[in-house]
Amino acid sequence: MHAYRSHTCADLTKDNVGETVRLSGWVHRVRDHGGVLFIDLRDHYGMTQVLCDPDSPVFAEVEKVRSEWCIRVDGTVKARDASLVNPKLPTGEIEVYIRDMEVLGSADELPLMVFGDQEYPEETRLKYRYLDLRRAEMQRNMTLRSDLVASIRRRMWGKGFREYQTPIITASSPEGARDFLVPSRLHPGKFYALPQAPQQFKQLIMVSGFDKYFQIAPCFRDEDPRADRSPTDFYQLDLEMSFVTQQDVFDTISPVMAGVFEEFGGGRRVDAPESWPQIPYKEAALKYGTDKPDLRNPIEMQDVSEHFRGSGFAIFAKLLEQDGTEIRAIPAPTGGSRKFCDRMNAFAQREGLPGMGYIFWRDQGEGMEAAGPLAKNIGPERTEAIREQLGLGVGDAAFFLGGKAASFERVAGKARDVIGEELGLTDKDRFAFAWIVDFPIYEKDEESGKIDFEHNPFSMPQGGMEALEGDPLKVLGYQYDLACNGYELVSGAIRNHKPEIMFKAFEIAGYGEDEVRKRFGGMVNAFKFGAPPHGGCAAGIDRMVMLLADEPNIREVIMFPMNQRAEDLMMDAPSEPTAEQLMELNLRVIPQD
Amino acid sequence: MHAYRSHTCADLTKDNVGETVRLSGWVHRVRDHGGVLFIDLRDHYGMTQVLCDPDSPVFAEVEKVRSEWCIRVDGTVKARDASLVNPKLPTGEIEVYIRDMEVLGSADELPLMVFGDQEYPEETRLKYRYLDLRRAEMQRNMTLRSDLVASIRRRMWGKGFREYQTPIITASSPEGARDFLVPSRLHPGKFYALPQAPQQFKQLIMVSGFDKYFQIAPCFRDEDPRADRSPTDFYQLDLEMSFVTQQDVFDTISPVMAGVFEEFGGGRRVDAPESWPQIPYKEAALKYGTDKPDLRNPIEMQDVSEHFRGSGFAIFAKLLEQDGTEIRAIPAPTGGSRKFCDRMNAFAQREGLPGMGYIFWRDQGEGMEAAGPLAKNIGPERTEAIREQLGLGVGDAAFFLGGKAASFERVAGKARDVIGEELGLTDKDRFAFAWIVDFPIYEKDEESGKIDFEHNPFSMPQGGMEALEGDPLKVLGYQYDLACNGYELVSGAIRNHKPEIMFKAFEIAGYGEDEVRKRFGGMVNAFKFGAPPHGGCAAGIDRMVMLLADEPNIREVIMFPMNQRAEDLMMDAPSEPTAEQLMELNLRVIPQD
Repeated sequence: MHAYRSHTCADLTKDNVGETVRLSGWVHRVRDHGGVLFIDLRDHYGMTQVLCDPDSPVFAEVEKVRSEWCIRVDGTVKARDASLVNPKLPTGEIEVYIRDMEVLGSADELPLMVFGDQEYPEETRLKYRYLDLRRAEMQRNMTLRSDLVASIRRRMWGKGFREYQTPIITASSPEGARDFLVPSRLHPGKFYALPQAPQQFKQLIMVSGFDKYFQIAPCFRDEDPRADRSPTDFYQLDLEMSFVTQQDVFDTISPVMAGVFEEFGGGRRVDAPESWPQIPYKEAALKYGTDKPDLRNPIEMQDVSEHFRGSGFAIFAKLLEQDGTEIRAIPAPTGGSRKFCDRMNAFAQREGLPGMGYIFWRDQGEGMEAAGPLAKNIGPERTEAIREQLGLGVGDAAFFLGGKAASFERVAGKARDVIGEELGLTDKDRFAFAWIVDFPIYEKDEESGKIDFEHNPFSMPQGGMEALEGDPLKVLGYQYDLACNGYELVSGAIRNHKPEIMFKAFEIAGYGEDEVRKRFGGMVNAFKFGAPPHGGCAAGIDRMVMLLADEPNIREVIMFPMNQRAEDLMMDAPSEPTAEQLMELNLRVIPQD
Repeated sequence: MHAYRSHTCADLTKDNVGETVRLSGWVHRVRDHGGVLFIDLRDHYGMTQVLCDPDSPVFAEVEKVRSEWCIRVDGTVKARDASLVNPKLPTGEIEVYIRDMEVLGSADELPLMVFGDQEYPEETRLKYRYLDLRRAEMQRNMTLRSDLVASIRRRMWGKGFREYQTPIITASSPEGARDFLVPSRLHPGKFYALPQAPQQFKQLIMVSGFDKYFQIAPCFRDEDPRADRSPTDFYQLDLEMSFVTQQDVFDTISPVMAGVFEEFGGGRRVDAPESWPQIPYKEAALKYGTDKPDLRNPIEMQDVSEHFRGSGFAIFAKLLEQDGTEIRAIPAPTGGSRKFCDRMNAFAQREGLPGMGYIFWRDQGEGMEAAGPLAKNIGPERTEAIREQLGLGVGDAAFFLGGKAASFERVAGKARDVIGEELGLTDKDRFAFAWIVDFPIYEKDEESGKIDFEHNPFSMPQGGMEALEGDPLKVLGYQYDLACNGYELVSGAIRNHKPEIMFKAFEIAGYGEDEVRKRFGGMVNAFKFGAPPHGGCAAGIDRMVMLLADEPNIREVIMFPMNQRAEDLMMDAPSEPTAEQLMELNLRVIPQD
């Protein structure tokens, strides 16, 4: 017989009754029923009930085992009494009578119980991650993550993509975040950087003629930690293709995303890729207040400025006299109660706005009545015109925000989420996708008036060189995001592969040729030697697992995450280097005051 | 029609004759045949001959294109004259008459030609890697690498393994090389390290109950560059299993390795895994002079000390009077000529030995004669006994090395390789595998007399705690390597998962408990909480690709490698950090003298 097991803890059924078997695993829990010891023996695959009565030759040893000891048992498989069958467990029809036992690894007193639902502080969980990971939910999250990545790979191979590994210890590849630096021992005073993304390398792979690249790529950004962001390294599905249009990229990645969400979504509905809307950035901002709308929520905001221009509601009427202002309505079907409206108004105030005006419509016996101070101020005609524009009726409400879009849009988007949620309009049983397209290439800093890249400096402007010669703020890019349930899952672009257009694009944002060559020299030089048109995208793996596992915290979907202070409490990182290490690297740490 | 292509450059056959098609790719070369321009248009998939006669509306533009310009052409597919069919090319039956053309990316004068076989200095190749990679051989090496890794993944999944990603920015995980350090911005004066291998993490994954782990894992070692070693990051197939014996690990990885070598070996013979010998380390050293023997070479060395003890060959006879010395013979079937023997003797001298004594046997009319000074010195009886032990005859030779094994073994192993090679005994058309087992846990430093780990401190000693209480130099480990054609492809061990045995093992090598906790705290602490018996191995991806692609230089099988000074000439890494970056990291560079 094998040294450790003839079966896993998920294998035995009543077909095995009478067999002598060997199992290894962890003591999930021990119960003493009238002198008979019942042990739930657990391994990665499942759980088997093993038991030891005082007749067993190893009863005395088995009496000593405790939760989370790792043991091997030999025994005989017996059928359970019909009344004791556990239909929820694959092994629920049998139990194993222990005849021999070996302690493979005993355990000290546990800082964290694997059995049961007790909650522990995150610091405890991370310090004893190997115990935390034994819990059913963590086993599930980690295998989900692994299976998801495997499925992505299979799907990408099926589409003719090959995975190529790009360097990790390399030059800075700025993506807007801070680089992690690695001091070079062989070149004193010089540093490598860890890539924020393989952006330049994947474009170089296209220039090298490889046509279709993907990678489950480690990325590194020295950012301050957040619940949904790893403070050090994270993985993305990174892909790039040559000789493609924006629609080709959509047609490639959409079925991959839809496929994995169907495969791992636990039965939640996944919209068919052909039905995913392509929403221009500007329209997304107007309707949803964000470029990552949650389309499970049917609410669409509308511009209702006309109804307030010159109206009796002085605040809005005055606002509208300023350039670039508007009044935005958030319709709230079924939200027509003062209580609900007041709660949403309070929400807006907590978010830093003066509040949200509202109107709600109720049945007043002899017909519909529009209630709320705002309705009174603007009068019945305007109120009715608004109701008609928004398509609302009795029992519904609408909220109003005014000013420059930038001043209220973020809160409006959040309010839309909360309204959809609270009114039960958001379909929780669905993954709703949308491509957001036509991002502007540039934005203007309100204070300095300076023009800078809105997003990614590598995107091809729609209209090419000609477009760059007009008003930069009107230039749209072949740049796109895929939103799902309120998150950005994918981001990408058709790249600017023509050096002359690239230099012009940077010049508009105030970067001279020298600066561009210094920061992106590897790529820009390559474009001088027959660069193909190309484009691609990247999708965050952690984010996908979070959505599929329904986990709000990224640390639930990473095997060994850092804590919120970017420390690994289990491995004790970061730590003090030795004097020799610093000497070899030619570095001195500046003493802190 | 699609903006860039209706077909790839490998698609068109005579079935497409008469169609109007669109192709995109690179101008491989242009020939002018009597005013008609012939262009070999190349993409990742293949090559198509396109041509332009003076009747074409775009003749003037096509006349301007040069090698490595990226272009799109529209044209009509025509059958080639029977006499012009190229049977070596999938598209060799047709050619495309250009009717329209667009330059997608022009090219400056080329520092490196893609067409043809011209060789370039490595620095040029690495600086313009994107051009170098367009060459057929590099395209082949990179796709081989990608396909190999994909095949490994499929095979590991098929065996029930899941891939789990381990942290990259983490704590030092010492494997005997130097760590790359990453300064922490949030914790001034502290550093992360990049893992030399995921050794501790994969063992922690076992303690976490995951049973079967693998990863195509990035590893980082700050080592001085070598032809067969990447100076920064490299990848290995890393795997670990719980509840297994050494033989289980062999049974898992052997078919994976055999499978990929069959799949990508280009028809070279692969020994069936069941026939792979398991050779104890000591025996490998004796027979092959190395723990990574090339078994394509049938030569096995033998100890022939007895024949020289007290013999007339004073040098060997005297040597043998010292403790721990021996005389080793390298049989050389078919090597029986003075010329060959002298050449091998000279080889040994170049390798730093005084030389290799030899005997060779020739036909002297009235029977066999043993020739060479050594035979004369020891006399016919001893010479004949040696011949019989080695199983040699007329036309064969044997070489002799004496002293302590450590003083000559390395050269003996190399001599065995050269002899096998020069005499044509080594079967070049084969991948010959062998497991090397029973490595000693400890070795003694000859000078200091200090006992240290021979290999890896994490291996379980055979015989457990009891063995550690005897002579440490006699303790063997459950530790193994897989050798193939003279290279170490895989290395692994059954791990020491019992804290008390681990501390004892370290104590013998002079490391106290505190030191162990400091260096391997994460893992050692985990072993106190029900650690399962586990083991695994790691296989170098680069090495496998080098063997399969028959490339002696690691930079031929990596997309964007560093040069031998650990610099990336294309991306300009490493480079000077900005003053801000150093300030944020709280570091100062010590000025060089």
